[in-house]
Amino acid sequence: MGGQGRSQGQTGMTIETISTNRSFGGVQGVYRHASRETGTDMVFSVYLPPQAESGAKLPVVWYLSGLTCTHANVTEKGEFRRACAELGLILVAPDTSPRGEGVPDDADGAYDFGLGAGFYVDATETPFAANYRMRSYIEQELPALIAEHFPADMARQGITGHSMGGHGALTIALRNPGRYRSVSAFAPISSPLNCPWGEKALGGYIGNDRAAWRAYDATALIADGARVAELLVDQGGADNFLAGQLKPELLEQACRDADIPLTLRMQPGYDHSYYFISTFMDDHLRWHAARLAG
Amino acid sequence: MGGQGRSQGQTGMTIETISTNRSFGGVQGVYRHASRETGTDMVFSVYLPPQAESGAKLPVVWYLSGLTCTHANVTEKGEFRRACAELGLILVAPDTSPRGEGVPDDADGAYDFGLGAGFYVDATETPFAANYRMRSYIEQELPALIAEHFPADMARQGITGHSMGGHGALTIALRNPGRYRSVSAFAPISSPLNCPWGEKALGGYIGNDRAAWRAYDATALIADGARVAELLVDQGGADNFLAGQLKPELLEQACRDADIPLTLRMQPGYDHSYYFISTFMDDHLRWHAARLAG
Repeated sequence: MGGQGRSQGQTGMTIETISTNRSFGGVQGVYRHASRETGTDMVFSVYLPPQAESGAKLPVVWYLSGLTCTHANVTEKGEFRRACAELGLILVAPDTSPRGEGVPDDADGAYDFGLGAGFYVDATETPFAANYRMRSYIEQELPALIAEHFPADMARQGITGHSMGGHGALTIALRNPGRYRSVSAFAPISSPLNCPWGEKALGGYIGNDRAAWRAYDATALIADGARVAELLVDQGGADNFLAGQLKPELLEQACRDADIPLTLRMQPGYDHSYYFISTFMDDHLRWHAARLAG
Repeated sequence: MGGQGRSQGQTGMTIETISTNRSFGGVQGVYRHASRETGTDMVFSVYLPPQAESGAKLPVVWYLSGLTCTHANVTEKGEFRRACAELGLILVAPDTSPRGEGVPDDADGAYDFGLGAGFYVDATETPFAANYRMRSYIEQELPALIAEHFPADMARQGITGHSMGGHGALTIALRNPGRYRSVSAFAPISSPLNCPWGEKALGGYIGNDRAAWRAYDATALIADGARVAELLVDQGGADNFLAGQLKPELLEQACRDADIPLTLRMQPGYDHSYYFISTFMDDHLRWHAARLAG
């Protein structure tokens, strides 16, 4: 297919269609829009399952990606379309940072800060504060755009993500109680306050006041009283980042202390890659669909 | 995971493990070896389903890729592992041409000849004859390597492929009667004698004697008496290459004339991409598994 075009919604938010491809009876689309929050063009993908053709509004699962990723990684390698088509789920995959000329990057070009590493925060530090507004982008701007341009039932949203995106899914859900009926994660960064990736990112975007970081740390949010109804987390046992960066035991302890039902599944032999994610994607989508039904 | 190492078989054919990743309960591996046929290092991928851990020999499905592809495209985007794991199938994905320093390419660097475009022929023309031996590589050298290093039951082989690789699957099966118990294709080039891609490739690799091309043309092979028991072909109805290059009606006519049962499924709205292939991969693997059982 590869349809192209522009459509303008009632509120004047315009999106440009980069590509559409029929897949599993539905349509995998990739779209671009000018983001108010980031001050850049942003690209995202949306899978519409075949049920969308009936005109019905369908539940939405948000998938937030990890370090270095764009929308394309999960769109190409996530193996989500079969289950979304069966279950009638829309899947939205945003980018992980602003991009483009003038967007500041890591001083050394490292993969874990700057481009591809927005960490789902609203930066307050210079020079990042102008563009790095991924929290507001994912929480406010992009949902409004999705609601306007796609047959999405915004009363039935679920959220998931991988690694940095698992951190994003958990923290966004915890800060917005009741908005997401289902929350899961693949190998999430459980506590940015307690790992090198998190310390570098939050220090760089938010500054040295570690108290301000707690709004961007799932375990701290839970300790501070934020709640979700339940959580599903899969974690590869052979993940190179398990002990040093991801630390699911911190999330497990926080959930235990807060009486949040957490299903944490350690998967022996699995690593941090899409070979892991795609294996358990089906389980996660079924888990979301059960909670988004009706 | 990402295991690395070398293993040497009894015949002295050595393979190097580039990566292994656990996926769907089995192992997705990528391997390199020094090919006698191409005179270059060649990379291929092998998915071993969980049933391989029992030590049993398992049926093998060969997947031959299309223009511009390496082993990586189907390995990342093909969505074959869930079904292979369920059905107990090994899937082997070779590269589409020799590569590396000194390997001649298309004079203009075009995508449809030279690197990434070996067309599964043994070239006879200078300067391609030395390296472009993909027919012998896929028919002889790589199967011997697979048989030696993996738990593959070579009495139970199936073959499929996409576009140029669909052409490869059909012609290799037709030239080797009885070797492949099951043969299918996604959007194959039905007759290189009758399309621009085929005319350029066969002219460049084989020369101007069109009679010599017939060994590399599925419809000509069938017209000349070659047979397979049956065929499954899926073709996207919105495939940009359908009318100009792929021409499934030529294969359909040849099969009708030869009484070869062909299941040709036109899939409305689907294009030439992996969004199409992945949608119907499951059907193909089930079709192969039914014919490779026992």
